[in-house]
Amino acid sequence: MATAHRFADPVDLLTGLATTRAIRRYRDEPISDEDLSTILWLASRAPSGSNRQPFRFLVLRDGSRARQAKSMLGASFRAMWAKKREADGYDGGSGRLEDSPKARMAATMQHFVDHFEATPVVVLACLQRHRSPHLTEGASVYPACQNLLLAARALGYGGVMTTWHQFIEDDLRTLLGIPDDVGLSATIPLGRPAGGHGPVRRRPIQELVYDDGWEQPAAWATDPEGTRFTKAGPPRRKP
Amino acid sequence: MATAHRFADPVDLLTGLATTRAIRRYRDEPISDEDLSTILWLASRAPSGSNRQPFRFLVLRDGSRARQAKSMLGASFRAMWAKKREADGYDGGSGRLEDSPKARMAATMQHFVDHFEATPVVVLACLQRHRSPHLTEGASVYPACQNLLLAARALGYGGVMTTWHQFIEDDLRTLLGIPDDVGLSATIPLGRPAGGHGPVRRRPIQELVYDDGWEQPAAWATDPEGTRFTKAGPPRRKP
Repeated sequence: MATAHRFADPVDLLTGLATTRAIRRYRDEPISDEDLSTILWLASRAPSGSNRQPFRFLVLRDGSRARQAKSMLGASFRAMWAKKREADGYDGGSGRLEDSPKARMAATMQHFVDHFEATPVVVLACLQRHRSPHLTEGASVYPACQNLLLAARALGYGGVMTTWHQFIEDDLRTLLGIPDDVGLSATIPLGRPAGGHGPVRRRPIQELVYDDGWEQPAAWATDPEGTRFTKAGPPRRKP
Repeated sequence: MATAHRFADPVDLLTGLATTRAIRRYRDEPISDEDLSTILWLASRAPSGSNRQPFRFLVLRDGSRARQAKSMLGASFRAMWAKKREADGYDGGSGRLEDSPKARMAATMQHFVDHFEATPVVVLACLQRHRSPHLTEGASVYPACQNLLLAARALGYGGVMTTWHQFIEDDLRTLLGIPDDVGLSATIPLGRPAGGHGPVRRRPIQELVYDDGWEQPAAWATDPEGTRFTKAGPPRRKP
């Protein structure tokens, strides 16, 4: 493809999959039209049920409505983070130690939401729905979201998939004219990373992969040397 | 990462995203333990809500229950395809012409379901659920499924994401001991492709990307030269 060899030293697929992580701090640089087009085009190469492609990407850049939408989203993100900070106890325990992972995560999140309006590009990933909520409906939009994040990474950008539009979803729909039968599946801020990509932290592979039956160990599955672990995420909130 | 440079000529990330397509015909070759481990490990590098990682991969290879499960799934896939073949009119119109895209798709699907039991590896992508069905719950499992398909591609394999376990889901749960609060999000057959990967067909990018408002054209978004189109998928079925 025309897009394949724009860099002297492109990221290879295996490395890209292993090291694309959530990016929440962006440099003050726009995303060029050409790069944005490539990112969206690659997002839309993802599979969907029967290849019906019910995903739509509504891109917010510097248009008049985009600026208003980013402002609404900023308020929503700050509210969602304040709620999560409290609910997940980010300011207790090791969160009191300035250099703990918990405190650093809280600082990153606070910076992210405080500067949301300055995010170069925000993509709203939408889904044309044709039945009531169902376990598998996300199969036709989230693969495209993951492709979008990987494509951004390939071109030197980064982003994070969120659902933090929820506090102001009705206002956002009105502003942007999003019909009622379209789901707002994700809000994805994108920009040039202030830091870098790198290995992600996950649970040990034995907790995630089973063989021949539920919770049956997969003896052949191993974490490569150097894998970084998170034994568990933050405490699960009440439904 | 240890996995990054196993090949002299690895697939680059941009090419991988552009050319990973559904693979439904497999050669009669197993997937090695090492490759399978790498595929599942890369799948699990995907993001999930608050990095809670509620996805679980139940892998079906040659174990006793795996063989029974593949047999059940084969029956379900054949039933699902028979229903779809009829509902989507695969045998009408251009489907009557042996070399039409429709007829070729039907032949591929028939071969796929008729040989399902011989699929080298079938992965059941599961989701630990903690609330009733919701638009965004798939955000914590389908990015991992897409990573899985891309990782398979990187190592020379291929597969396809389906939800065709639905006809025999209850029996499958009983056989494999899958708890009720775990969702069966996808069934993903994997193997060495009989054919190859390559560019996929999608709608024109202008139908999928909007700028600054719903259905507002994104003038900067273009399909690269050589893009292959599918104006629309098969007719939408009634809800």
